[in-house]
Amino acid sequence: MLVVKKFGGTSVANKEKIYNVAKRCAEEYKKGHNVVVVLSAMGKLTDELIAMAKDINPNPSKREMDMLLTTGEQTSVALMAMAFDVLGIPAISLNAYQVAMHTTSAYGNARIKRIDSERISHELDQKKIVIITGFQGVNKYDDYTTLGRGGSDTTAVALAASLNADTCEIFTDVDGVYTADPRYVPKARKLDEITYDEMLDLATLGAGVLHNRSVEMAKKYGVPLVVRSSLSNEEGTVVKEDVKVERMLVSGVAADRNVARISVVGLDDKPGIAFRVFDVLAKANINVDMILQSVGRNNTKDISFTVSGDVADEALKVIEDSKSRLNPEHVEIEKNVAKISVVGAGMMSNPGVAAKMFECLFNADINIKMISTSEIRVTVLIDEAEAVKAMNATHDAFGLED
Amino acid sequence: MLVVKKFGGTSVANKEKIYNVAKRCAEEYKKGHNVVVVLSAMGKLTDELIAMAKDINPNPSKREMDMLLTTGEQTSVALMAMAFDVLGIPAISLNAYQVAMHTTSAYGNARIKRIDSERISHELDQKKIVIITGFQGVNKYDDYTTLGRGGSDTTAVALAASLNADTCEIFTDVDGVYTADPRYVPKARKLDEITYDEMLDLATLGAGVLHNRSVEMAKKYGVPLVVRSSLSNEEGTVVKEDVKVERMLVSGVAADRNVARISVVGLDDKPGIAFRVFDVLAKANINVDMILQSVGRNNTKDISFTVSGDVADEALKVIEDSKSRLNPEHVEIEKNVAKISVVGAGMMSNPGVAAKMFECLFNADINIKMISTSEIRVTVLIDEAEAVKAMNATHDAFGLED
Repeated sequence: MLVVKKFGGTSVANKEKIYNVAKRCAEEYKKGHNVVVVLSAMGKLTDELIAMAKDINPNPSKREMDMLLTTGEQTSVALMAMAFDVLGIPAISLNAYQVAMHTTSAYGNARIKRIDSERISHELDQKKIVIITGFQGVNKYDDYTTLGRGGSDTTAVALAASLNADTCEIFTDVDGVYTADPRYVPKARKLDEITYDEMLDLATLGAGVLHNRSVEMAKKYGVPLVVRSSLSNEEGTVVKEDVKVERMLVSGVAADRNVARISVVGLDDKPGIAFRVFDVLAKANINVDMILQSVGRNNTKDISFTVSGDVADEALKVIEDSKSRLNPEHVEIEKNVAKISVVGAGMMSNPGVAAKMFECLFNADINIKMISTSEIRVTVLIDEAEAVKAMNATHDAFGLED
Repeated sequence: MLVVKKFGGTSVANKEKIYNVAKRCAEEYKKGHNVVVVLSAMGKLTDELIAMAKDINPNPSKREMDMLLTTGEQTSVALMAMAFDVLGIPAISLNAYQVAMHTTSAYGNARIKRIDSERISHELDQKKIVIITGFQGVNKYDDYTTLGRGGSDTTAVALAASLNADTCEIFTDVDGVYTADPRYVPKARKLDEITYDEMLDLATLGAGVLHNRSVEMAKKYGVPLVVRSSLSNEEGTVVKEDVKVERMLVSGVAADRNVARISVVGLDDKPGIAFRVFDVLAKANINVDMILQSVGRNNTKDISFTVSGDVADEALKVIEDSKSRLNPEHVEIEKNVAKISVVGAGMMSNPGVAAKMFECLFNADINIKMISTSEIRVTVLIDEAEAVKAMNATHDAFGLED
């Protein structure tokens, strides 16, 4: 039995928490299981390193930023190995070079390509707990890369896939996946099981429990995922391909409040113009989420899209720098917006979900700015100030508390 | 022209100091020279990391300690690259994996075996300043190692040798090599030039300006070394094979106050007993300095030796753990001792140096506990409380102020 366990930054923020993690993993080890531990940087260390960098250079190169940030997880894994030693458990820490975590070359936002698991297997064969730096990789230039925020989840799943692990446990500060964020929706209920696709939509849409790429990868390689609390021994939520329980129409409500909408207004109404807009964004490595194209005045087109709040200013700059090529009348940005989504595999065979959602938002007097749907999801963009109201209204409308 | 410049931790302790170093290196770069910069960890970061580790585990494994400590220099080099970027100078940071700094496998005290300088040459060809982590290497297991305290000097010299650099400048908080430590000997005078051998004795004997291995390596590969101030543009001291100036009898007085003497008293007077004592120490990787063997009472031998104060307790433990094998009457440790040395290539042809030193110490009423000599050095062990008095007396006796 091989188990991969991933702990985030808050779970290793100090000595006491490091020992909690070590003891928890030691229990698993003492059952005779092979244990691989994936760690993030301690507490707010990544934020502190970013602040140090910005103090030196407000616009640091992404290559050097990754060189800096990768020290964070290396600190965590070395300290964790020292804690296991005190507990009398053989353990070894490995960084991205040592596990040969090969990624694409995109600094700050790399994707894992392959892992040479030889070293890990060698250490596991020697009955050691292997502690691996999350979030980081090495590219073809032999430089450090990072996988983007939350990338340690992806590291854990990639390792579980590569090592053919029996399960991949993601430890968080919540005890599983809920029908909505319990901090804002008091009636939110923990789910025992959820499908990869539902989890993927929840992750992408800002439920904040798992990094979306990690869910994509888990689905692709069929890695059994468990989301559970680092503070309790509760069972958590199992994420897998098929869920046995009777399908609810909707399994959860997700909100993403870190969003911005950019509108490119008054574009020429000719073929290829949408391509140009999204081409300049893609070349700047900016992920676009919702897209709306509408007819503007005087035979023009308006294109609106949403991006993560983290890259909003960068996306705006990229569009403005391409004004000569795109030739819009003007460009607008709106930052106080939020995405609210209902997600559920059950809605595939039930066409009334979108209408029901719009109705409940109308009843709550909430204006919808954009709409986007998939087979198992309906997403709306609304004012950020109304996000909590919208989450609760939707949660009630679909009877998720039961 | 290729110049290697090494800056210690105090030179990169904060933003302002990082920019000072960057500007200084930029001046060299703008002359059209190739510049390689070697950095230590910022300020007290290494000490802080050690404290974090000891808090988790009072006796951390050396392998994991090196994994932890190597994050320190990586932080420095990434931030320095960001500073060069602000100055408009192309630069890139590289760690021990990236420069392929191969070392022996002794964690915490490794020696450099070879450097694959391909990556560095490639970056220099692209007219970048190359910023390299000092103090660290990678061993045959693909694990991080460190070179021991002060090892960044050795990194710089090894790089200078490997790259066939024209000069290797070691920047410190003093402006060169003095005839004695100016903090304790007011009449101390800066030397313009000194030979490798003299510098080696001064380094080994606690002058504290350069790491001894770095001088050994500079001598072996004929790397021209310059010791100079990171705070001023003064010329500094050149360390090289042959010094042109008329040889003084003695070129400097060194003191090492971080010393302990261990005495193993009442050993059997039979062949091989000294070997056994130093064999157990060698196996524990403890460097022994002065050695004195004397005849004890009742046909026994006494063996005394000095070690660095940092490893005094460890050395004592190693000896005590081997009592059954060594069978001494008892073992003593004396911690409040200091080594005072006079060094000078000129004394090779002048037998009166030792006598002159002993005379001046006698006149100053200082008791000598042990004596050790080499071709260009005389060292005595005295009470630590008398170290400053001994340094000044010796400095005066040999007329070093002129």
